[in-house]
Amino acid sequence: MATIKDVAKKAGVSVATVSRAMNDKGYVHENTRKLIDEAIRELNYKPNEVARSLYNKKSRLIGLILPDIRNPFFPELARGVEDKMQEHGFRLIIGNADEQLDKELDYIETFKQNNVIGLISASTNAVLTHYEKLSFPLVLLDRTSDHHPSVQADGYEGGRLAAKELVSRGSTRITLLKGPVELQTAQERFKGAVDELFNANVHFDVMTTASFAFHNAEYWAKELFEKYPDTDGVIASNDVVAAAVLHEAHRLGKKIPEQLQIIGFDDIPFSQFLYPPLSTIRQPAYEMGREAAKLLIRQINGETLEAKRIQLPVQFIERQTTRKEERND
Amino acid sequence: MATIKDVAKKAGVSVATVSRAMNDKGYVHENTRKLIDEAIRELNYKPNEVARSLYNKKSRLIGLILPDIRNPFFPELARGVEDKMQEHGFRLIIGNADEQLDKELDYIETFKQNNVIGLISASTNAVLTHYEKLSFPLVLLDRTSDHHPSVQADGYEGGRLAAKELVSRGSTRITLLKGPVELQTAQERFKGAVDELFNANVHFDVMTTASFAFHNAEYWAKELFEKYPDTDGVIASNDVVAAAVLHEAHRLGKKIPEQLQIIGFDDIPFSQFLYPPLSTIRQPAYEMGREAAKLLIRQINGETLEAKRIQLPVQFIERQTTRKEERND
Repeated sequence: MATIKDVAKKAGVSVATVSRAMNDKGYVHENTRKLIDEAIRELNYKPNEVARSLYNKKSRLIGLILPDIRNPFFPELARGVEDKMQEHGFRLIIGNADEQLDKELDYIETFKQNNVIGLISASTNAVLTHYEKLSFPLVLLDRTSDHHPSVQADGYEGGRLAAKELVSRGSTRITLLKGPVELQTAQERFKGAVDELFNANVHFDVMTTASFAFHNAEYWAKELFEKYPDTDGVIASNDVVAAAVLHEAHRLGKKIPEQLQIIGFDDIPFSQFLYPPLSTIRQPAYEMGREAAKLLIRQINGETLEAKRIQLPVQFIERQTTRKEERND
Repeated sequence: MATIKDVAKKAGVSVATVSRAMNDKGYVHENTRKLIDEAIRELNYKPNEVARSLYNKKSRLIGLILPDIRNPFFPELARGVEDKMQEHGFRLIIGNADEQLDKELDYIETFKQNNVIGLISASTNAVLTHYEKLSFPLVLLDRTSDHHPSVQADGYEGGRLAAKELVSRGSTRITLLKGPVELQTAQERFKGAVDELFNANVHFDVMTTASFAFHNAEYWAKELFEKYPDTDGVIASNDVVAAAVLHEAHRLGKKIPEQLQIIGFDDIPFSQFLYPPLSTIRQPAYEMGREAAKLLIRQINGETLEAKRIQLPVQFIERQTTRKEERND
């Protein structure tokens, strides 16, 4: 078990300096602080609780990049990350990339310059090369990669489940809203749904929604019914889009779920308050956030995880935009 | 007009050092950097565009404290702050205080330690003493104080308007949901509504909702109809609570707006997708965020604003949870 002397020796400073750094008393140069930080991490040094807590508060800053805080799915993810991080004495700061690559790059820079000791990114951009040369651990959230630890929900199964539930409840002319093409999770959902619909031999049309953002959802909804007025089942790319489809369907006087079934994706808190309450595929956003935080903490504590992937299960939440299943008892 | 020489002289360093600091080339001690930063600010020195943009990226970090990112009102505020800050080359990091004072204090510390050059707080806590001794400018958002510049919407008028619209549309047994007691904006709305209802001589009951948070909204909604089953008009403390009330009213088979009118507060994006679409008092969240950013930037540029208050107007958004106004033409 490492002692404060070992840390001082490794960092090439005095015990008093390590103590000053950890207790936040007196001046310690920033570079010295980094050396001490590294030594503590490498030696897995565990100070007593009080000292550690002071130390934690001083430097244990975690960055989180969200693609769009206006989509309620992401604040829910963030809360999971936050709660887990707080249990371990870390602090979380959030950057909102607004689905834009330049903003995302900007946040990576900001976090570097502010000495975060770990980063969780729920980026929507396909290009991951700018995450290659970080000096601190990284976890990808809501996507995967071959090079980094990641946490996501089982999108393929989610898409499959959405299609299966609509078909088994009697929809025969389904419209499948495909999320942004550059988005891995959206593509997996799409593949799952397509595979299931092919297997079931059900007619379906595909419409691409180029964004998950709120202000575009209404537009997709209108376009959907213009293009496919006879659709009797909609698999929405997420709950925000599903809410817009539901709204547009009401406006057109369609009876839900009798004439039209709608199924969402995410299960954001608002979905239960829609009318009728939205049937959807639940992603465990809060739990995903917690798992990502756990993976990051393990790395901060010195474990090498490489491309470890954690995939959490999805679940069909039956509410009232889908009909009761026809049973052959 | 100040030159780079003036900055160097004031900071007590060489021109080369100022240049290094601004171009992020070579080593400049953190304390020196601060002196240069101060000199630039005091002299209102304007470097050429390229140099400034590099300099901005290096050190122009702004902190934003939100009380609850799960309430869609706050991400909207944040987007306003963010867009304005970005136009001026600042970067924004967000802390979610989760309606808890200790988390809020934690973020103030974090931002201090990470050298933010300004802070915008949309804190919900009444105690403002912990904002007294900051070394950087502060703007309060969605609340006011006698000691700091602030931006908020006209809550009193909002409450008054909500009451007026329900009364003029025929509600006679109104339930007024009062937001958290410690929350200034909630209290102002409440006062506005009470004054209007007294003037109109209409019967009303008051129920306090101790939080604006999502997970509690359903609870308030159920309690409301248990306590006041005959209510024919609800003034909700915000749109999230209004959505929950609407949902519960459907469950109880009430006809909306014929038997029950509901009016929200905020106009979050989801309100238009509710069924019927929610009538509400709109706070211009995005614009509020932008105004707060402007006030902060003015201070960063050296202006002293003291307790300047900016109050933005609210607006009744007529949708379909209120009846058509009875006209005596």
